[in-house]
Amino acid sequence: MSMLLEFSMYPLGQGESVGDYVARSLDIIDRSGVAYRLNPMGTVLEGEWDEVMGVVKQCFDRMSADCGRVSCTMKFDWRKGATGRLTGKVASVERHVGRDLKQ
Amino acid sequence: MSMLLEFSMYPLGQGESVGDYVARSLDIIDRSGVAYRLNPMGTVLEGEWDEVMGVVKQCFDRMSADCGRVSCTMKFDWRKGATGRLTGKVASVERHVGRDLKQ
Amino acid sequence: MSMLLEFSMYPLGQGESVGDYVARSLDIIDRSGVAYRLNPMGTVLEGEWDEVMGVVKQCFDRMSADCGRVSCTMKFDWRKGATGRLTGKVASVERHVGRDLKQ
Amino acid sequence: MSMLLEFSMYPLGQGESVGDYVARSLDIIDRSGVAYRLNPMGTVLEGEWDEVMGVVKQCFDRMSADCGRVSCTMKFDWRKGATGRLTGKVASVERHVGRDLKQ
Repeated sequence: MSMLLEFSMYPLGQGESVGDYVARSLDIIDRSGVAYRLNPMGTVLEGEWDEVMGVVKQCFDRMSADCGRVSCTMKFDWRKGATGRLTGKVASVERHVGRDLKQ
Repeated sequence: MSMLLEFSMYPLGQGESVGDYVARSLDIIDRSGVAYRLNPMGTVLEGEWDEVMGVVKQCFDRMSADCGRVSCTMKFDWRKGATGRLTGKVASVERHVGRDLKQ
Repeated sequence: MSMLLEFSMYPLGQGESVGDYVARSLDIIDRSGVAYRLNPMGTVLEGEWDEVMGVVKQCFDRMSADCGRVSCTMKFDWRKGATGRLTGKVASVERHVGRDLKQ
Repeated sequence: MSMLLEFSMYPLGQGESVGDYVARSLDIIDRSGVAYRLNPMGTVLEGEWDEVMGVVKQCFDRMSADCGRVSCTMKFDWRKGATGRLTGKVASVERHVGRDLKQ
């Protein structure tokens, strides 16, 4: 559970509103059993490489099945032996700042 | 209020734990008055270009004042005339999926 | 000249091929006088914050003038007092590896 | 050969200069046989998902073997049936702009 990976994936060439495609990915993520949090600019997954990348790959397979072009950004932060960082990182920042922050 | 910008900024060469530096940025963001949400992999700001980039610049000025190397990722999504997307985008995805998601 | 910033900006809702829009940005960049290198996934600029962000802002103003939605990723690496990194970083990696690499 | 993926991976907590770690990744990439181009802010790979992600995974396995924290950004652009985009995308932008650009 030592990797946090945020990703955002969407099709190009399917118009300006891509909510239907994003919703299909979130449905896959939510059913996967992998721990996640959705934010306005992406979804953060927590797990080992194979779990996390397995979910991203499923989303890609689904989107590339009926879209001609797919764009994706990913960013990961791996820390040896760390766990519970999906909620723990924000809590740690709040402790450092000394007050509640908006999340 | 048409731009959502997520960013993550941290120093290189200050050790493995950079919580103190991230906390200083969050303090700047929280006091700025610009709408934001913190997540485990970054902070999402909402506003016009000058507001949003002004906050990022303040964080950079503070961090570069006492760090020799600073790394930052940013990603923005601008939509003409759109407002309230800091909460609206996630709500829209939930409507498309047809159930509550983890955020 | 201590900041390297890579960015990639494109419209959503203008079809699958966005070469015309990217070309307008590159025309702005190339005429700006700011040092840059184009690669298949983005453009790397070198300069101070105001120079570099000024060019990105010009590209954004041009694209948002006739596109309803604009997406952009940026990543910067700032190092105090460093210069000539647009060519120097790749040369340094080659020295470490001990042979020429593809660029 | 339809995916272009750019990535940049480095350790946190190993000091400000991480050239040795980056060089180990480039050695892996260069020996992998997968088509690539190195630029000052990352390396762009071209191939199918499994080839490209296989190389990134090898770099991660090597880096996480002796670093306690690893940070990585990735961005991919997949286009159905497209080939030769490692050189083709830049050439296409140059045609649109109507002159040679710096690469």
